[in-house]
Amino acid sequence: MKKYIAELVGTFWLVLGGCGSAVLAAAFPDVGIGLLGVSLAFGLTVLTMAYAIGHISGCHLNPAVSIGLWAGGRFPASDLLPYIVAQVIGGLAAGGVLFVIASGAVGFDVSSGFASNGFGAHSPGGYSLTAALVCEVVMTMMFLFVIMGSTDSRAPAGLAPIAIGLCLTLIHLISIPVTNTSVNPARSTGVALYVGDWAVSQLWLFWVAPIVGAVIGAVIYRFVASGDE
Amino acid sequence: MKKYIAELVGTFWLVLGGCGSAVLAAAFPDVGIGLLGVSLAFGLTVLTMAYAIGHISGCHLNPAVSIGLWAGGRFPASDLLPYIVAQVIGGLAAGGVLFVIASGAVGFDVSSGFASNGFGAHSPGGYSLTAALVCEVVMTMMFLFVIMGSTDSRAPAGLAPIAIGLCLTLIHLISIPVTNTSVNPARSTGVALYVGDWAVSQLWLFWVAPIVGAVIGAVIYRFVASGDE
Amino acid sequence: MKKYIAELVGTFWLVLGGCGSAVLAAAFPDVGIGLLGVSLAFGLTVLTMAYAIGHISGCHLNPAVSIGLWAGGRFPASDLLPYIVAQVIGGLAAGGVLFVIASGAVGFDVSSGFASNGFGAHSPGGYSLTAALVCEVVMTMMFLFVIMGSTDSRAPAGLAPIAIGLCLTLIHLISIPVTNTSVNPARSTGVALYVGDWAVSQLWLFWVAPIVGAVIGAVIYRFVASGDE
Amino acid sequence: MKKYIAELVGTFWLVLGGCGSAVLAAAFPDVGIGLLGVSLAFGLTVLTMAYAIGHISGCHLNPAVSIGLWAGGRFPASDLLPYIVAQVIGGLAAGGVLFVIASGAVGFDVSSGFASNGFGAHSPGGYSLTAALVCEVVMTMMFLFVIMGSTDSRAPAGLAPIAIGLCLTLIHLISIPVTNTSVNPARSTGVALYVGDWAVSQLWLFWVAPIVGAVIGAVIYRFVASGDE
Repeated sequence: MKKYIAELVGTFWLVLGGCGSAVLAAAFPDVGIGLLGVSLAFGLTVLTMAYAIGHISGCHLNPAVSIGLWAGGRFPASDLLPYIVAQVIGGLAAGGVLFVIASGAVGFDVSSGFASNGFGAHSPGGYSLTAALVCEVVMTMMFLFVIMGSTDSRAPAGLAPIAIGLCLTLIHLISIPVTNTSVNPARSTGVALYVGDWAVSQLWLFWVAPIVGAVIGAVIYRFVASGDE
Repeated sequence: MKKYIAELVGTFWLVLGGCGSAVLAAAFPDVGIGLLGVSLAFGLTVLTMAYAIGHISGCHLNPAVSIGLWAGGRFPASDLLPYIVAQVIGGLAAGGVLFVIASGAVGFDVSSGFASNGFGAHSPGGYSLTAALVCEVVMTMMFLFVIMGSTDSRAPAGLAPIAIGLCLTLIHLISIPVTNTSVNPARSTGVALYVGDWAVSQLWLFWVAPIVGAVIGAVIYRFVASGDE
Repeated sequence: MKKYIAELVGTFWLVLGGCGSAVLAAAFPDVGIGLLGVSLAFGLTVLTMAYAIGHISGCHLNPAVSIGLWAGGRFPASDLLPYIVAQVIGGLAAGGVLFVIASGAVGFDVSSGFASNGFGAHSPGGYSLTAALVCEVVMTMMFLFVIMGSTDSRAPAGLAPIAIGLCLTLIHLISIPVTNTSVNPARSTGVALYVGDWAVSQLWLFWVAPIVGAVIGAVIYRFVASGDE
Repeated sequence: MKKYIAELVGTFWLVLGGCGSAVLAAAFPDVGIGLLGVSLAFGLTVLTMAYAIGHISGCHLNPAVSIGLWAGGRFPASDLLPYIVAQVIGGLAAGGVLFVIASGAVGFDVSSGFASNGFGAHSPGGYSLTAALVCEVVMTMMFLFVIMGSTDSRAPAGLAPIAIGLCLTLIHLISIPVTNTSVNPARSTGVALYVGDWAVSQLWLFWVAPIVGAVIGAVIYRFVASGDE
């Protein structure tokens, strides 16, 4: 039970930190942190939490990661549902707290995006559905490849949180213009429900693509690593 | 006695480095470091000091951290007062040195803020008292959660300074626009006393909110981690 | 065989992540990640992969690195060809995926550069052939020096991925204006073939200079480290 | 003898990387790396070299560091002169290579600064001699404090390169506007001799202040750490 609460708190931090930096600080006049700052923020939520709760729950914070690790033979199917439920609740709680804080400034308008993921007309750079699908699948595929590899028993101990956190930073450095970067259905859901409308109607892609990519990435790593173990 | 001096020097570095980067370099024309650079600077003060004096004093550098660790069962009540006194003295000394350096350029005006924390009319983004309170409580809560977790005996040894330092960077990436980010009463006090006026009259919030948040965060971690130890 | 696939996947990530961030996000209006973000992205591809596949293939991801390590006595000549072939295939695959994603936005034009390396009229800052040659040779020389040193058995274990990845970030922070930074023939080839024209006709420099520099750097390190071992 | 060559190569990297990023990339139109990128570059030269040659020479790369470590009881007086000579030669060699590369673009003018350190009319932000003196003394003082602490036998093993490298980044984030940041006489000398004129006539400050600060910082750490060892 404690590990589910850990996942809830951790995913709360991922969504509050990542989406919070985007909503509150990215476009702050003259000295805003930009997409580089948002990318760093998302990665640091995972890096910090992996050191804080890695020893309690493994620190997935992401339904696609939990499913990918199951496909990679690293996580029991019996824990999938409670992990995913905890992650989505944590994401939604973060969206709520962020809504309260963001509402404290004049001019806040949740319908302007609230850091939701999107494609086509709702992609930050106007990228098509196809580009969004390819991008989310490939990014999550590589994310799981790095997660599987850096937590392999042959990799240096204790440093996977740095590799995994900064991998999420890297993924955002590449792909925010395409989909605002999800690779995480709980992150997408955690803000989309407050926006409603297009954010909810496009939400399916940010469940399907990350999960498909995660399974592919975990299976590829498993293949590459096999026979050497 | 030596550990109190270590806390004083460490908090001196936190305030000089974090607030110094904000006052001297954030808005430098064309090539200024922006809020991203200031966020990095605050985090690096803690990261560097944690490696330098972690083995001497534990490197709290922050009254809310000391009180939170006490609430989390990690720090004796008998050391609370001397730690907090040393932290505040270190912060004030940093404010003084920064004042001397900043005064060396034409046009410096301490009343323009001097990196003080504020809400309402004195929030960088004009955020309300409520938003400021929620933000400071939640940010410090998560800060203590990460501190408690990454220094847990089950977490990887020697890497907590990276997790904790970069957690402070992350907190700044999210919340500078809201309150200029405190989560640390010594940091707020260290510059506010030089500004006087509104900076001092709003200072109460940056003692109350971080301490409340720190206690909550430490208690939550203690609960999540219990039974597994 | 598995290690060649690991090199292919790793170089795919290096080119997709580094060149992808440059093509998709560097100049995004107002909040683009700039050359700093691109520098970070290139470094993080290596940092993340070194933790993910270092224990499988050594994670070279770069023909110049493989050749330099051979010159430094750390890599068998018999593996040179398959490593280089795998790296180039991985780079080309990344170029293809990036092309598909980038094509999903209106206004994409591969002939505007596609993150290719160049000199003279095709240097980002208009640097001459001589400057480009000196720069690529010296940068790769120092890259190999750091790789050889940080993976020396006397260096701290498990941290070379951080040193090497951030060394690539540093190299980009210096030299993107000069040549768009290669130090890696597979990275240059992986995008140049999609651009054709000048990108292909200038490609020779980004094979010759990195390889020459890599051999020099490895030999210098070997000399400096000898007699102490 | 090998350790002197290591110091020469390492200081070459520090000056080429730090000053090179400033001269070539800081103010690149629209996407330049700014003072944040330069700060990161300086820090990464030390981080990468500390992993590469820490086991050979200790990786000082800085006369003030060598003298400070001597004052702190960590370095023999007999090695001071050859270390400082090697560092200055390495810095001058880097200035030469940077000059060759930078000259490859139209419009390069060494007299516009070439990343030299200065005060008064030659301070980037117009800071006075007093501000420059205080700033360089205090920054180098804290640099040595962190170096002494993070390499203390009680600090976590193998991570001092990260603490020390990122401490140099932090120092630049604070103080580039004041003096262009030295804290290192070899770095200042390595570029000033190519500029001549004011850069040379102000050079005394960037030998005196860093050395004074370094000795103070090392002595303070020695005092704080004593009795606990």
